[in-house]
Amino acid sequence: MTAAPTATVTTQAPQANEPVLLRENHGRVAVLTLNRPQAMNALSSELIAALDAEFDRLMSDKTVRVVVIQANGRAFSAGHDLREIRSSTEYAFHFDLVTKCSAMMMKIRRLPQPVIAKVHAVATAAGCQLVAACDLAVASGEAKFATPGVHIGLFCGTPSVPLGRNIGSKRALDMLFTGEPVSAETALRDGLVSRVVPAAELDAATMALAQHIATKSPLVLAQGKELFHKHMEMDLEQAYAYASTFMAGGMMRQDARIGIDAFVNKKPQPDWTGR
Amino acid sequence: MTAAPTATVTTQAPQANEPVLLRENHGRVAVLTLNRPQAMNALSSELIAALDAEFDRLMSDKTVRVVVIQANGRAFSAGHDLREIRSSTEYAFHFDLVTKCSAMMMKIRRLPQPVIAKVHAVATAAGCQLVAACDLAVASGEAKFATPGVHIGLFCGTPSVPLGRNIGSKRALDMLFTGEPVSAETALRDGLVSRVVPAAELDAATMALAQHIATKSPLVLAQGKELFHKHMEMDLEQAYAYASTFMAGGMMRQDARIGIDAFVNKKPQPDWTGR
Amino acid sequence: MTAAPTATVTTQAPQANEPVLLRENHGRVAVLTLNRPQAMNALSSELIAALDAEFDRLMSDKTVRVVVIQANGRAFSAGHDLREIRSSTEYAFHFDLVTKCSAMMMKIRRLPQPVIAKVHAVATAAGCQLVAACDLAVASGEAKFATPGVHIGLFCGTPSVPLGRNIGSKRALDMLFTGEPVSAETALRDGLVSRVVPAAELDAATMALAQHIATKSPLVLAQGKELFHKHMEMDLEQAYAYASTFMAGGMMRQDARIGIDAFVNKKPQPDWTGR
Repeated sequence: MTAAPTATVTTQAPQANEPVLLRENHGRVAVLTLNRPQAMNALSSELIAALDAEFDRLMSDKTVRVVVIQANGRAFSAGHDLREIRSSTEYAFHFDLVTKCSAMMMKIRRLPQPVIAKVHAVATAAGCQLVAACDLAVASGEAKFATPGVHIGLFCGTPSVPLGRNIGSKRALDMLFTGEPVSAETALRDGLVSRVVPAAELDAATMALAQHIATKSPLVLAQGKELFHKHMEMDLEQAYAYASTFMAGGMMRQDARIGIDAFVNKKPQPDWTGR
Repeated sequence: MTAAPTATVTTQAPQANEPVLLRENHGRVAVLTLNRPQAMNALSSELIAALDAEFDRLMSDKTVRVVVIQANGRAFSAGHDLREIRSSTEYAFHFDLVTKCSAMMMKIRRLPQPVIAKVHAVATAAGCQLVAACDLAVASGEAKFATPGVHIGLFCGTPSVPLGRNIGSKRALDMLFTGEPVSAETALRDGLVSRVVPAAELDAATMALAQHIATKSPLVLAQGKELFHKHMEMDLEQAYAYASTFMAGGMMRQDARIGIDAFVNKKPQPDWTGR
Repeated sequence: MTAAPTATVTTQAPQANEPVLLRENHGRVAVLTLNRPQAMNALSSELIAALDAEFDRLMSDKTVRVVVIQANGRAFSAGHDLREIRSSTEYAFHFDLVTKCSAMMMKIRRLPQPVIAKVHAVATAAGCQLVAACDLAVASGEAKFATPGVHIGLFCGTPSVPLGRNIGSKRALDMLFTGEPVSAETALRDGLVSRVVPAAELDAATMALAQHIATKSPLVLAQGKELFHKHMEMDLEQAYAYASTFMAGGMMRQDARIGIDAFVNKKPQPDWTGR
């Protein structure tokens, strides 16, 4: 199911030997790897920029149908880089840092491809936000999630945006006010991740999931993703009107024509080439 | 608890001996039965029209206090009828089909009676949407739920409207992007159904639930249902203002007068005849 | 961890020896105790006014960093006082009662301090609403929750506002239409409470939680709470814009400066004195 990976280094850190973000293509699946293991994959402005630039490339990359975000080292991501935050007392510096981070997170939603967070270990603060901001998330049973900003006098404000929308007020405020970690199982129950698997199966299960989705029509995935995120911010009547037009259009398209034809005639699923 | 059913055939399929939708009244509970078992109860335009017409009749039927939607055969419903979708390449045809389906789903919310989906088996695509669109849902432990449109090149767009509002983004997108079925227990955890019971108890448990609700004031149920769905689309301040006016009005009404009087005086619950 | 309590009687009921609401300070934690055990802590207009007045005092009380609401007797709260509802047939009376109750509930959200419901037993109707309206809720495994207005001909309209926002439509309507109680575990799964502990541990666990949060910066808690509740009513793009500005401001502040400095230098958490 997994094709031979083709590694592409996307961002070369000028001050180090290792790039902060790695990218491999496994067939139609692009795997982005946070690669600051010595810094708990903290989201430095360099790493934020690397993710943002990679998302820009993926935006128009028709060979990629699913994106996986994973991480090297003992943590998934510890959030913002505290050394960087300490480095300036200028408001403009902090505003620029946070605004670019938020724009990067929003870009996940705008990508035409489904984006899956693969969480093998602890994800905190903006690292937890990154998980919440992805479309899907697969967690190892050993993963942990926390928004511990209160421990350092800095409320996890931007993380609370997708967190609250994933898990609701009561559980989100418990995490935000206490900073305490929650288990993968709790994260699944609450809706922060969509799947939990044993640690030993995380690699295979996530790649199988990604490759499964990658067999679907990229046009259908892209338009469905856009529809979903848009209608979730409408009232029910608007949402139905919007989705009905979407649906009628979908029924007219080639992808559905050949898909339904294959299904009705008990033929194998087509290899959609749309978009 | 269950009264002797009085069967009323509501829609005669011109091309078959069996109507596509059956209706029985069990006392104050109307039971609608999807009756296209040979077609997995696919929501053909005939079945959509039959449901819509039945909802119109129920809208003003003061003898019915609760509605149950169930299905005959091995499936609850497989969603839209693919043969029908294949039968036309006209946009107007598809737009009409989907618009009528969405209008039928919205009508469930507008009915004065609580509507309960009783799900004994698999509910997929628009069949899963029908479950999501009902006020309550009781599932057999053997029921399954899926939005498998991606398998046939047709994203489950309209199903995603109530699905996303029931179970949230992470779990909804997992179902929508993968098409994979989820168990009744998972559906309960996520909020797609409100109860799960063993298969052998589904009939009795659903009817007991429906008859229990049917002992309540129909005016209170109808006004409460309308209030709830409306305030859920308001911000908190608006919602409280609207609900406070509702509540003060409710305290003035005869139903509350006799209900509170019975409760305080330890008399049996009244047989409300309001509306 | 718990300081010696200093009791302060806040509201003297003119017609009884016992005040309907008690307040004790345990260090930086204020504990409010509903004290109408003989009336199942029904929210009489006197108790509503006492809670409202206490919230007004807490609004500007910089010595209090966390508020706990608990109750004496066999119930947490049975909701509105039915004897009071029966006492008048004037609309103005009922409108005034409900409007004041809603305003009191809204005030919980406006308090700068996190508010924790500590639920040892049954919480019904407006008592269940009080739990839903708090930021956090810790329930004993023996607690029960219900919105049983339908049993007395009075839909739990105002309770349904925060209930629906906590647990979603399917489960909320099941509670609202049936009036049946749900267990603490179900309430946790659905999102009505944020924690469940064994009955014997409820006192200690809730106080430990409150004291833990009370060690955090009160400014950070207050601003974070306001941010969260506001952005949850925005669309995603607005929410990110608002939270990004919030976050950049937070990074500039003294609380974050000393918090991050302590963390990076492996010093103990500061004793924040901000606000």
